[in-house]
Amino acid sequence: MNALVSLVGAGPGDPGLLTRAALARLRRADLVLFDALVNPDVVALARRARRFPVGKRAGRPSMAQETIHALMIRAARRGQRVVRLKGGDPFVFGRGGEEALALRAAGIPFDVIPGVSSAIAAPALSGIPVTHRGVASAFTVIAGHAPASYEPVLDAIAPGAITLVFLMSIARQRDIAAALVARGWRASTPAAVVFAASREDADTRIGTLESLARGDGIADAERPGLIVVGDVVTVAAHLHVHAGASRFEMPAAKAEAAR
Amino acid sequence: MNALVSLVGAGPGDPGLLTRAALARLRRADLVLFDALVNPDVVALARRARRFPVGKRAGRPSMAQETIHALMIRAARRGQRVVRLKGGDPFVFGRGGEEALALRAAGIPFDVIPGVSSAIAAPALSGIPVTHRGVASAFTVIAGHAPASYEPVLDAIAPGAITLVFLMSIARQRDIAAALVARGWRASTPAAVVFAASREDADTRIGTLESLARGDGIADAERPGLIVVGDVVTVAAHLHVHAGASRFEMPAAKAEAAR
Repeated sequence: MNALVSLVGAGPGDPGLLTRAALARLRRADLVLFDALVNPDVVALARRARRFPVGKRAGRPSMAQETIHALMIRAARRGQRVVRLKGGDPFVFGRGGEEALALRAAGIPFDVIPGVSSAIAAPALSGIPVTHRGVASAFTVIAGHAPASYEPVLDAIAPGAITLVFLMSIARQRDIAAALVARGWRASTPAAVVFAASREDADTRIGTLESLARGDGIADAERPGLIVVGDVVTVAAHLHVHAGASRFEMPAAKAEAAR
Repeated sequence: MNALVSLVGAGPGDPGLLTRAALARLRRADLVLFDALVNPDVVALARRARRFPVGKRAGRPSMAQETIHALMIRAARRGQRVVRLKGGDPFVFGRGGEEALALRAAGIPFDVIPGVSSAIAAPALSGIPVTHRGVASAFTVIAGHAPASYEPVLDAIAPGAITLVFLMSIARQRDIAAALVARGWRASTPAAVVFAASREDADTRIGTLESLARGDGIADAERPGLIVVGDVVTVAAHLHVHAGASRFEMPAAKAEAAR
């Protein structure tokens, strides 16, 4: 009996940003339970597995967390190899910790395969290093989907010194920018909205907290994306794409000024 | 002429945590310039390349950043494929932003391959999710090698709400713990020291800010590692490794109480 549940990070989208260990787990899997935002090309790498979407998608109901736990545990008890596939890294807002605890409580063997987190990779692929010497020596990653998640965090951080990355934040763009300005961040602080990083339809809008608060670029609120705030955003303005750019290359050519 | 410089993240150490895109770049490379802390097994994947260490190692002199830039630019101008290989992710304290700007200024084609950051993966592989529902909805990643890097960041963060991850911090363990307590963090705040995550010699010590301030576990100050501070550390205490654990599995069996 080789039952095993693997909590696997799928990375930001491009199948090239999957790890070798994640690929190995997918290829051996009998069952894949994947979040709705995981790239279908990544899910398809699990050729011999039954594959079910279980995760959230903005505005639509998702499977109860307890149901996901029960599905994983039941399949493992039947001797199956299960991959619980999550966008980015499984322990960054992925409820991976909860799933690990549930598996442990049930006595199910499991492992964790960390992934490339969108929190770092999405800015990077837009030409924005989350840290940069002389500009930012720290960054904070924040759940941006609800004020109850981000407001206490913003209350705990003094304006200016730290790069902020808000995941799952596109629908809250205006509120987040306004919440920062209300807490003393300069309205002229550089900010970027990064959509669908590493995918064919990737897009970056560069502006300021002021332009974000006005709602510039908000027409794309249905697409997955994140918001980066801080002076590191200006690095992107100094980088430009070269001819023949791939999805991994600096997509500055795609960047549109959102102001 | 297919000259290209790739700024590539090697991940935390285990070659299984390399991305497929990183592996492809390594296999095609003519020249690899790697940081000293990158796992030699990862460097060895660039079979046909000349391979040179250029990065820092605690306490030893490293090549000047300008020299690294010059080496990359010269090789690219000769038509070579260059990989600049960095531990973790190239844009997290990797000076990847500076190298990208230097390449851009020289007109050299380049791309960026994000990697699995130790900042997230090392805690994860120790059973510590950097975020956990009801415990932490944000985490901050901080350069821990010098007080000038971390003290202004600590001054900007109110105690308690946010998980802190200090990279390059083992030699500063006592100072960092004391600096946090001096800023109002409870001495009983859970904290962990994670050494060599994802490698054969991985090791995790779980304690508190108080035990870290006393210097528990500090005998390993020469090994690469990081410090995690916050209530999420207690999740590790609830997870335990199963028989036949691999390097990817919860290494709680290796965890030693540092108090």
